[in-house]
Amino acid sequence: MVTPTVDTLSYSCELIQPSLRSALERLDPGVRHLCGYHLGFWDERGEPDRPRGKGVRGVLALLSAHAAGAPVEVGLSAATAVELVHNFSLLHDDLMDGDRTRRHRPTVWAVFGSGHAILAGDALLGLADEVLAEAPSATRSWAIRCLAASTRRLIAGQLADLAFESRRDVTLSECLQMAADKTAALLSCAASIGAVLADGPADLALKLAQFGEHLGVAYQLIDDVLGIWGSPETTGKPVLSDLRAKKKSLPVVAALTSSTAAGERLAALYLTDAQLTEAQLEEAADLVELAGGRAWAESTADAELASALELIGSDQIPSGVAEDLRRLAIRLSGRDH
Amino acid sequence: MVTPTVDTLSYSCELIQPSLRSALERLDPGVRHLCGYHLGFWDERGEPDRPRGKGVRGVLALLSAHAAGAPVEVGLSAATAVELVHNFSLLHDDLMDGDRTRRHRPTVWAVFGSGHAILAGDALLGLADEVLAEAPSATRSWAIRCLAASTRRLIAGQLADLAFESRRDVTLSECLQMAADKTAALLSCAASIGAVLADGPADLALKLAQFGEHLGVAYQLIDDVLGIWGSPETTGKPVLSDLRAKKKSLPVVAALTSSTAAGERLAALYLTDAQLTEAQLEEAADLVELAGGRAWAESTADAELASALELIGSDQIPSGVAEDLRRLAIRLSGRDH
Repeated sequence: MVTPTVDTLSYSCELIQPSLRSALERLDPGVRHLCGYHLGFWDERGEPDRPRGKGVRGVLALLSAHAAGAPVEVGLSAATAVELVHNFSLLHDDLMDGDRTRRHRPTVWAVFGSGHAILAGDALLGLADEVLAEAPSATRSWAIRCLAASTRRLIAGQLADLAFESRRDVTLSECLQMAADKTAALLSCAASIGAVLADGPADLALKLAQFGEHLGVAYQLIDDVLGIWGSPETTGKPVLSDLRAKKKSLPVVAALTSSTAAGERLAALYLTDAQLTEAQLEEAADLVELAGGRAWAESTADAELASALELIGSDQIPSGVAEDLRRLAIRLSGRDH
Repeated sequence: MVTPTVDTLSYSCELIQPSLRSALERLDPGVRHLCGYHLGFWDERGEPDRPRGKGVRGVLALLSAHAAGAPVEVGLSAATAVELVHNFSLLHDDLMDGDRTRRHRPTVWAVFGSGHAILAGDALLGLADEVLAEAPSATRSWAIRCLAASTRRLIAGQLADLAFESRRDVTLSECLQMAADKTAALLSCAASIGAVLADGPADLALKLAQFGEHLGVAYQLIDDVLGIWGSPETTGKPVLSDLRAKKKSLPVVAALTSSTAAGERLAALYLTDAQLTEAQLEEAADLVELAGGRAWAESTADAELASALELIGSDQIPSGVAEDLRRLAIRLSGRDH
């Protein structure tokens, strides 16, 4: 057992948050105010607040540079860029999904209006490539192209998610593809872009990308479980929020397509136009569990996590970094308790 | 008088439109459908249509490479990227501004919904830097940074425009700054980014950027005049649309801040919460004219165009390209009749 060299999430406070603040300095004051509110740098009146979000994607990008033998700092522009893209997507998705709460606070569109949330997201997306284009690295253009490819999948995943709302026949395979695009694509990019920027070997970058892809699917499965059974203290969202919004999340689709009596009762409840009552919400959660949706999501997450961990077990990655990646993966997929 | 070497707008059909189509090929089919509808490549059912938009920004980028002594093709990725950014902003602005018609067709949000318009815009913005990052040019990172800086101004300009809606005290200087950010920034980038990608001299790139900045302000002034007095056949929008939406466009703000009796009557009419009747719309247009708003906009546009043309009169730009730029500038600022 190798002792991890650092508390990896402290990278987020010490390196990534200051770099994000510095990137925001470039923005027009009005746009900056919206973006900094979203990131938790200040509250809606501009008074200092505390940054929310775990910055996991950014930390992965730093570790990715380190895995390629470079100092973590070499991955800092990549870390900043993936965090900017992640937060761009949160700003736009919260608006599209009508989510009024994020990280225990009202979302930007709920406070400032929808046009403001669109522009704040646009600004963060625009900043991401600018930061990467300034990286003192011969491979920065390749890093920009990797990030663009994952941003494209992220957008396709969100469009699929929107389309699922009005469809009654979503298959589990479509739902897994949507989750891979919406969540795993950016985690895959985060886990490999630091190695790209550090000009690491292509096979290492590809292995790290696969690690991130599996980790992303594991993460989304557990996030969907928490979206039903998580406590508001942990998730920062209202209880049963995914069921309330009738989201076709992974455990729900697994239950709906389970060919069980519970799955059929869930479909009857879920696929009506009416808003569910509190009692019906509790019943729906029980039906997802009875139909095997929860157990399937948890065991699939375990399998995805195992596949991810196998990829970083090779000798190619220095053991200290591999251990940091392993701990981060276990924490992110909610398997650390 | 130098004879122009080519019909510059044919560049748009022959080079830029195919390059945009090719960029769209990378997108997920669902997202591509939305983007191609917006660009006029197909109608809402996917049947072939004809591309709309004059592609002026793209043509400027091609001429910009040519001005630096390179073949126009060297500017093609830059041309594609600025057209992608321009269309990203149209997709998002139409949604924010509630505009249901663009280029004689219903806008994407009006046909497909607001979430779809947000995602289509995001996708085009993401593609822009990817295309630039692939350019076979040593200066592509600098081109990406120039484009990012102008995209940031574009976003700041749109935010200012949104803020103006609920303000009664917008000054003409604020309004000119908004127009410079919202419109001139990207035209300035378009006019210089080809020279950047062609690794042209810095002073030439800067001169072309200034040319584009002046041209952009001239264009916005005339576009605002057309937004009041233009015919629907020319503008592709309903008659008097800017007054109907009570936009604080440049001629309107010039009239409102004119300290004339007509300006005061306009303020009384314009700054109420009620929707204007057809008769009131006609009256408002007359008041903008009476208060000198139209004459000011037209003479300021002439002055900006003259400043723009002066910048490309130097010996540094080959005379054939200078003539192409001159003709394009005159056409764009509506001074070709």
